[in-house]
Amino acid sequence: MFQINENYLKLPGSYLFSTIGKKVRAYSEANPDKEVIRLGIGDVTQPLAPAIIRAMHEAVDEMGKAETFHGYAPDLGYGFLREEIAGKDYRDRGCNISADEIFISDGAKSDCGNIQEIFSADSRIAVCDPVYPVYVDSNVMAGRTGEYDEAAGVWSRVIYMPCTADNGFVPELPGERPDLIYLCNPNNPTGTTLTRDQLKVWVDYARREGAVILYDAAYEAYISQEDVPHSIYEIRGAGECAVEFRSFSKNAGFTGVRLGFTVIPKTLKCRDVAVRDLWARRHGTKFNGAPYIVQKAAMAVYSDEGKAQLKDQVAYYMNNARVIYEGLKSAGYEVYGGINAPYIWLKTPSGMSSWEFFDWLLEHAHVVGTPGSGFGPSGEGYFRLTAFGTYENTVKAMERIRKLKGSL
Amino acid sequence: MFQINENYLKLPGSYLFSTIGKKVRAYSEANPDKEVIRLGIGDVTQPLAPAIIRAMHEAVDEMGKAETFHGYAPDLGYGFLREEIAGKDYRDRGCNISADEIFISDGAKSDCGNIQEIFSADSRIAVCDPVYPVYVDSNVMAGRTGEYDEAAGVWSRVIYMPCTADNGFVPELPGERPDLIYLCNPNNPTGTTLTRDQLKVWVDYARREGAVILYDAAYEAYISQEDVPHSIYEIRGAGECAVEFRSFSKNAGFTGVRLGFTVIPKTLKCRDVAVRDLWARRHGTKFNGAPYIVQKAAMAVYSDEGKAQLKDQVAYYMNNARVIYEGLKSAGYEVYGGINAPYIWLKTPSGMSSWEFFDWLLEHAHVVGTPGSGFGPSGEGYFRLTAFGTYENTVKAMERIRKLKGSL
Repeated sequence: MFQINENYLKLPGSYLFSTIGKKVRAYSEANPDKEVIRLGIGDVTQPLAPAIIRAMHEAVDEMGKAETFHGYAPDLGYGFLREEIAGKDYRDRGCNISADEIFISDGAKSDCGNIQEIFSADSRIAVCDPVYPVYVDSNVMAGRTGEYDEAAGVWSRVIYMPCTADNGFVPELPGERPDLIYLCNPNNPTGTTLTRDQLKVWVDYARREGAVILYDAAYEAYISQEDVPHSIYEIRGAGECAVEFRSFSKNAGFTGVRLGFTVIPKTLKCRDVAVRDLWARRHGTKFNGAPYIVQKAAMAVYSDEGKAQLKDQVAYYMNNARVIYEGLKSAGYEVYGGINAPYIWLKTPSGMSSWEFFDWLLEHAHVVGTPGSGFGPSGEGYFRLTAFGTYENTVKAMERIRKLKGSL
Repeated sequence: MFQINENYLKLPGSYLFSTIGKKVRAYSEANPDKEVIRLGIGDVTQPLAPAIIRAMHEAVDEMGKAETFHGYAPDLGYGFLREEIAGKDYRDRGCNISADEIFISDGAKSDCGNIQEIFSADSRIAVCDPVYPVYVDSNVMAGRTGEYDEAAGVWSRVIYMPCTADNGFVPELPGERPDLIYLCNPNNPTGTTLTRDQLKVWVDYARREGAVILYDAAYEAYISQEDVPHSIYEIRGAGECAVEFRSFSKNAGFTGVRLGFTVIPKTLKCRDVAVRDLWARRHGTKFNGAPYIVQKAAMAVYSDEGKAQLKDQVAYYMNNARVIYEGLKSAGYEVYGGINAPYIWLKTPSGMSSWEFFDWLLEHAHVVGTPGSGFGPSGEGYFRLTAFGTYENTVKAMERIRKLKGSL
């Protein structure tokens, strides 16, 4: 009899956002008269910018004519886009990254999930706690995480780096040596950041210990403060120890369009093997390129017109973040994030657990957020709200929450 | 020091089509006056059908308006498309497949490459020889294939099932018991097929031995003969032992659009675990849905207008297949395939090796094909031509080859 990958059976319950979806559906069915506002999942709500829509229409027309039809894209992405990214996202910021170190994909979630497979099966991973669930779950599937302690909500072979209000959400260097260190900056879910100086500590540590930093910069477009780096390659030495993931989902609203990229400098090596070459081989074997239409749409993200439109879009969401941040503050909540990221992280009131607060908020304010404990044990007692709703809904949600707080 | 996945280093050379690409570029640069005709890689050349283009434009417009914008797609695909596939590709053919057994993805190559990871790490795989390289390479990366014998071109733990003219390209049941059996029908690269009766032998064998058939039906739209099944689920019992991969690349020209799907019936189980549930979990963790625009475009594939346009497109390519088949025959070649598939498989003349014939054909006819040995040791002495060129180029290529044959 054939056998399955038993590691899959170790995964506790279902994916966090599926659980939330089910709870909300059940609530809505039982309470059809209640208008539910969703500030839970990090999905955008603003339509694609006009410059992007125009680029897409043009690309669709090209696909309809024999002379301009595009079949298989290059596995690693079209040269035009890789060059644009290398120039505008990196060289313009003083980062020495070239087009052949950039790998276009169908999104940062795929890349974050797949990257682990080019590393050794017994690699030790370190993650911030709380953290985006994909980092840990993809390593569970690969058998790297040991056994799950259900009561504590931790895996025996995962190194957890707590990020709470107590340490200002800045992870401390771990006591045990990890091989792979996942960092997300600006952070999902806490919305907090590492400054350039704080990140430098990690780059130095990784180089000293021979570890790789897997750096998720999906939210870099939301950075407003000068001392927060947009790329890890702004830190000297990162080219020898870091992989960077980027996304078009949050800066350009591509959550339903699907495009991202991964950067692996040629200088990141294990002995004489460039990690970049392994990823290129994976891309060439298990992926067949991102759609031409989508890669052309991404070019519009870098045009002057597109940039101006997207700056407004980011400002729109960050205004929502301000509304949430100030709304919660004035209601007496302890609030974090929201300055350099579209996420607001709040301490649950009255010692409620994260899921208790989820249920309470859904029941009394009809607002959906994400329980902090879903992101890891140190997220317990916290709760995430996102700024990706509409302005109107965001304001309305805050009014409801403010009223509630008084009645707690 | 962090360690890499050493299995990657076992992979011999680069991906077949990258090697061909490099050889052709070198030839073209050295011979800029020669017009090279590419009948090598299986990429389509006809533009997307008008019904598909229209559906794409409409979907792009939806993405540009707040009321109709679509963010994250459901991980497993939109219900509208999964229902359409279940109805038109399966129930209409008498196959008992429901929407929740269908998983939309960015293409069959990704799915064929990723499927192995939901099975045990020590699974034994069996492949036809010759075969699409992704099946073996993805298992090499996962460490399932043992050691590579460079002289013989085989892996010690892979069960090879030779398919040559001697057995009419019908694989024989293996002597050793495999866990996972890859079958591609109609076959890439040989263009030959298994009939319903021949496939039934495999379904019965898999059920008897507790093996899973990983059935790649990417070319089903090209089937012209009545006794060749369009889906493995036409065979009784396949629902308990088979996974099916389908693609929009070859029936609708989506090579550069990216869409495919995998079918895993709920009745395919290992003990009490439904394999379907593992794949759903993988999709939910390492994938974030296919683009809305692309899934809407796929709906046009099933419309009456789209179906009529695509029938013409398939007929166009199959007319090319006829031109190649008859052209080679009349030039005295031994030729196979081309009846139910867009691939023609020929025996190299005068005892040439596959790569000798590749070089000879490029040099003298400026025609690019694919060396059979690139698909496995039993492909040695064979050569693949594809019907995906334009009609004009196909005719021209055959004229050149016919002239050459006289001069051999």
